[in-house]
Amino acid sequence: MSQTPTPVSFAQQIPDGEDRERRVCQTCGFIDYVNPRIVAGVVAHRDGRILLCRRAIEPRKGYWTLPAGFMELGESVEEGAAREAREEANAELTLETLLAVYSIPRIGQVQIFYRAALLNAPSPGPESTDVMMVTWDEIPWKDLAFPSVKWALEHYRETADRAAFAPFGNPAGTDRLTR
Amino acid sequence: MSQTPTPVSFAQQIPDGEDRERRVCQTCGFIDYVNPRIVAGVVAHRDGRILLCRRAIEPRKGYWTLPAGFMELGESVEEGAAREAREEANAELTLETLLAVYSIPRIGQVQIFYRAALLNAPSPGPESTDVMMVTWDEIPWKDLAFPSVKWALEHYRETADRAAFAPFGNPAGTDRLTR
Repeated sequence: MSQTPTPVSFAQQIPDGEDRERRVCQTCGFIDYVNPRIVAGVVAHRDGRILLCRRAIEPRKGYWTLPAGFMELGESVEEGAAREAREEANAELTLETLLAVYSIPRIGQVQIFYRAALLNAPSPGPESTDVMMVTWDEIPWKDLAFPSVKWALEHYRETADRAAFAPFGNPAGTDRLTR
Repeated sequence: MSQTPTPVSFAQQIPDGEDRERRVCQTCGFIDYVNPRIVAGVVAHRDGRILLCRRAIEPRKGYWTLPAGFMELGESVEEGAAREAREEANAELTLETLLAVYSIPRIGQVQIFYRAALLNAPSPGPESTDVMMVTWDEIPWKDLAFPSVKWALEHYRETADRAAFAPFGNPAGTDRLTR
């Protein structure tokens, strides 16, 4: 019963009863409700060092990042953050507290970072070519993959000695600059 | 150039190069990446009272809720929360701090609530039949629309006198009970 699919073809239309344009498939009428996607990640620390992963895939292949990725259905944000740390760095960790919620409307993402205690020695997973544990002074600032990696590291630094704190939103200015 | 669309027909399949099933349209081959959706909302207070809205629409029509709704593309979580307060209660407000991030995997939602100062006198928007400003003792606990409304109210109560606090995740037990 194999059948060659008709190519996907979307157009922007306002569906009946709605107040804004949605992507509507011109082949089959499917309305693709595109919502912001959640990226869940961690700043994982152990013995005063922070876990970084070198990206094996695009975008920003070869640059350093925090373990983070798209949350999946059927898991909590915390579970998604822990899963990404396992997948990218074979890291086992205990989440400590929510660190930050960043909105990046230009790319339709909300990034949620947790502070976590790393429990084992990390090693590269399939999406990383390398992992390392760095002190603050060893962070490769010019080779970080994304602005939000820098934000999360700096927000971690501000709160590393505090048990309770108000979590961070975007750094001043970046809520507009990043659109 | 009008054309009757072929009915939408999805099946669960594992696309090439992926590790889990996705919804794939059997008509046109479109892969529907279903991600958790973000609900943005507020606990808005003024003169010691909290804003509640009576739902004009299903689900839970007639029950009381906090202003909250699905975040849209092109806005930050904070902007989404403020927009929902305008749409549901004609409320203008100043967001104060992130209150809580709840995961509800069973329905694929992450709910993000802010504490906010209400600046005007609210009135019902299209999705509300009524609004009211209640003291803690006047909250209609048995007529609240959703468990997360109760959670957010109780977490607000715990932190109403604090400027900075670690934001809340799901109350103990509910991360499993709600799946």
